[in-house]
Amino acid sequence: MKKQLLLILALCLPFLGFTIPVDSLKFIDAAAFPVIGKGFSDTQTRYERLPARLEELTRKPVWNLSKNSSGLAVRFRTASTAIGARWEVTGDVTMNHFAPTGIKGLDLYCLKDGKWQFVNSARPAGKLTTTIIVQNLTGEEMEYMLYLPLYDGLKSLEIGVTKQSEIKLPAVNSPKTGTPVVFYGTSITQGGCANRTGMAYPSILSRMLDCETVNLGFSGNGQLDFEVAEAMANIPASCFVMDCLPNVSPEQINEKYVRFLEIIREKQPQTPIVLVENILYTHMFFDQSTNSLINRKNELLSRIFKEQKKSGDKNIYYIKADKLIGSDREATVDGVHLTDLGFLRMAENLYPVIRKVSNF
Amino acid sequence: MKKQLLLILALCLPFLGFTIPVDSLKFIDAAAFPVIGKGFSDTQTRYERLPARLEELTRKPVWNLSKNSSGLAVRFRTASTAIGARWEVTGDVTMNHFAPTGIKGLDLYCLKDGKWQFVNSARPAGKLTTTIIVQNLTGEEMEYMLYLPLYDGLKSLEIGVTKQSEIKLPAVNSPKTGTPVVFYGTSITQGGCANRTGMAYPSILSRMLDCETVNLGFSGNGQLDFEVAEAMANIPASCFVMDCLPNVSPEQINEKYVRFLEIIREKQPQTPIVLVENILYTHMFFDQSTNSLINRKNELLSRIFKEQKKSGDKNIYYIKADKLIGSDREATVDGVHLTDLGFLRMAENLYPVIRKVSNF
Repeated sequence: MKKQLLLILALCLPFLGFTIPVDSLKFIDAAAFPVIGKGFSDTQTRYERLPARLEELTRKPVWNLSKNSSGLAVRFRTASTAIGARWEVTGDVTMNHFAPTGIKGLDLYCLKDGKWQFVNSARPAGKLTTTIIVQNLTGEEMEYMLYLPLYDGLKSLEIGVTKQSEIKLPAVNSPKTGTPVVFYGTSITQGGCANRTGMAYPSILSRMLDCETVNLGFSGNGQLDFEVAEAMANIPASCFVMDCLPNVSPEQINEKYVRFLEIIREKQPQTPIVLVENILYTHMFFDQSTNSLINRKNELLSRIFKEQKKSGDKNIYYIKADKLIGSDREATVDGVHLTDLGFLRMAENLYPVIRKVSNF
Repeated sequence: MKKQLLLILALCLPFLGFTIPVDSLKFIDAAAFPVIGKGFSDTQTRYERLPARLEELTRKPVWNLSKNSSGLAVRFRTASTAIGARWEVTGDVTMNHFAPTGIKGLDLYCLKDGKWQFVNSARPAGKLTTTIIVQNLTGEEMEYMLYLPLYDGLKSLEIGVTKQSEIKLPAVNSPKTGTPVVFYGTSITQGGCANRTGMAYPSILSRMLDCETVNLGFSGNGQLDFEVAEAMANIPASCFVMDCLPNVSPEQINEKYVRFLEIIREKQPQTPIVLVENILYTHMFFDQSTNSLINRKNELLSRIFKEQKKSGDKNIYYIKADKLIGSDREATVDGVHLTDLGFLRMAENLYPVIRKVSNF
């Protein structure tokens, strides 16, 4: 135990600059500031992802996962020379292939030189954490965005600034709100296994596109539930991205994929819909069984796409898995879930298509 | 707790192919197969990094960290259709910004089409893990490399193959052994915070260069200890890479850097030595105090380099921090420690220099 503590301290403390104590900050409830990335305003609590009425309508795992704050971010503005956070998670979730910073940390970005730039992450200490994220700032008033946990829920969230500082509503509408790109999908969509909460690919795309994105990734449960499609169809989306193939069997694809699209089309006949193939799991080049399964699923999706086009849908698009996460096969942690390397590549490859079809 | 378990299961079980039970494998002690990445054969136990005699000579934190198996890998050959592992770690270390797969997992690569390709990682279940890494292989005899934990020690390691399979000594000398590239450094050098153990930058470079690399990264403790330099000077290196700046203060640089180089030069007057600047921490573009500290340290190193050149050292080289981990500032988990994205960029930027000076 002593050795373990020593290692942890060693990794935490390279030579850094002057540091201030956390109690030199005052903490303000983040409820005072806007949240971006929400597809629905009528959620049970502030930091979750599906409308309250879906509790009775959807499967339990989907509902539970909707309480993870993946893809949500709080926007604020301050001239404080230090920024901190105090937050309590609902689950204190751990996973053996996923850094706690990604599961249940926070991730601070600043709008600087016209671009959202990573400032620092807030590393979780357990269920409740109080920490300084950055200090020794110049004191210039700036726009900030704080990404919330990817795989845990939030019981409370406060933002810390120096005692003499103000913290204000944002003055700049960036990423632009109102017509988000909506992602429907899996654990990968939800952000497994990004090291930081801002590195899930829908959040990277939000910064690239300068547009709000809605993350409807439900780990293991992006299984084409029709009630989720009905809810999604109410979002004034600029584009829908369907990235659920890793969570559905060939049988489920045959049974449910077309109907899921129809439900969206009933309310949004013209909104672009982008169908994404199952990424090429890195272990499928060795595991022959996985290889044939993934190829079969992608062939089914390709057929669905062609049939939809043929039946007159002019606003449907298709992204092949080939090179989506690069071609060196280094982009996953376990063959399936992406690392920050995989997420950046995924975002870079989706970006030109989404930008074009959404008319950004 | 139940919810947490549910989430974990959900993230583990996308639709994959046919699976076999772990007890369909037999497990063979990895002591029968060569380890690459060791700078010293006279270690206290098989999977550690400094010679036994250094226990009495070096600081306790350096000694403890030398028992982490970072950069070591076991080489073997088999035609088994499934490969597994059973391993026990000494510490069962956890960190809040580092995936357990990187801290204490294993990482399997296969030599295929003349290139080391990622097969899959072995995800740690705690202190002792028994797991299948890959299955449904074709049954062709192939060369494998299994990377060991980055931030934990190994008490035991066995490799699993199907009961009817043989597991053999490697038939190919790759990565080439005997004249390694030796890295001296910090937590970053040691591999913090790679998602997989094969993604520490010295290991990526080993695959790129097709040459054994020795990882002498000591988290928080790459502090220019002279006894470590004396030990390093005995390694028949093709190149030394000095990447310890994040662990030393300006005062320590002034006091110890030149003497550390002299100790290596006394035994290896001609071996290329590459001095690496402190990477540009992503938060230093906001934290003014860290900014001036890092700039000061890099200026000191630059001056040392110029003086060494002037005093006649023709085999000393210098790598500036500028763009070493990219310029988008997305490559770290906490401003300091690299993600897989940062490690790949670091390796890609070091590669041409090391390859050239080492005459590979």
